[in-house]
Amino acid sequence: MMVRDATGEDWPAIWSFMRAIVAAGETFPYDQEMNEMQAREIWLSHAPARTVVAVEPDHTIAGSAKMGPNHGGPGAHVASASFMVDPSRQGKGAGRALCEHALEWARSEGYRAMQFNAVAESNTQAVALYRSLGFEVLATIPEGFRHPTKGYVGLHVMHRRL
Amino acid sequence: MMVRDATGEDWPAIWSFMRAIVAAGETFPYDQEMNEMQAREIWLSHAPARTVVAVEPDHTIAGSAKMGPNHGGPGAHVASASFMVDPSRQGKGAGRALCEHALEWARSEGYRAMQFNAVAESNTQAVALYRSLGFEVLATIPEGFRHPTKGYVGLHVMHRRL
Repeated sequence: MMVRDATGEDWPAIWSFMRAIVAAGETFPYDQEMNEMQAREIWLSHAPARTVVAVEPDHTIAGSAKMGPNHGGPGAHVASASFMVDPSRQGKGAGRALCEHALEWARSEGYRAMQFNAVAESNTQAVALYRSLGFEVLATIPEGFRHPTKGYVGLHVMHRRL
Repeated sequence: MMVRDATGEDWPAIWSFMRAIVAAGETFPYDQEMNEMQAREIWLSHAPARTVVAVEPDHTIAGSAKMGPNHGGPGAHVASASFMVDPSRQGKGAGRALCEHALEWARSEGYRAMQFNAVAESNTQAVALYRSLGFEVLATIPEGFRHPTKGYVGLHVMHRRL
């Protein structure tokens, strides 16, 4: 699984799964009604942030990640990142490849830690992946996420030093 | 201390202290170099978010707050808020008035909780105020804030149910 910088030409492929992931409302705290322009504005980052795609050997885009400073100024030495994997391409390692890539990038850019602000605790697959890569749950916002079928669940703040 | 909605006409007064607060880099994780247009874009909110000012009896603007959803979609039922008080007008209750106002507003809008994402633990006055209003520290991001004289200090995530 190769990970490379995303370009404008990758957007239609990214949107094809991002649209479904956002509309499902099971994992991302994004407005489920967001339109394509808003989604593109949120997802395709500009420096110092960055957006990448995970590409399968047959050139299919299996997932995407964005990464950058979690806060500005005196908080800009801690990175954050978000990951989306095409639901039809799950289980092939795209999520892990993207997360490992983000960690390496953040380390090489001199960030001191990486933090995820909003990981739904019901998203057990993502929580397990992040834990396996050294993240720990620093806090769980009680009832911070409203899952469409599970109701209010906790929202983890996850962190690891780099 | 009266709290009312901010208007465009309040901006010069807000910027007069916001500029100094941001440049000092002691409390807000904002880019210290931000210019007036960027600051205005960040601070003057649009619905569903909202910006208010605290006004003294002589009509002086002593502080300002912005408040709104902390996340979108499935996370939009938790509010967040930020507060700035003119350093030359501290100790007159503007911070408390703004925070109480934000809590009442969030409650009336149906939010279930309020969360602050980035409270520098060195900002003991703010931490004490928030605790006195029912907030607790859910987590402290280790070394999450780089204070100009104290070096790396923790960054609190604070929360209270409404």
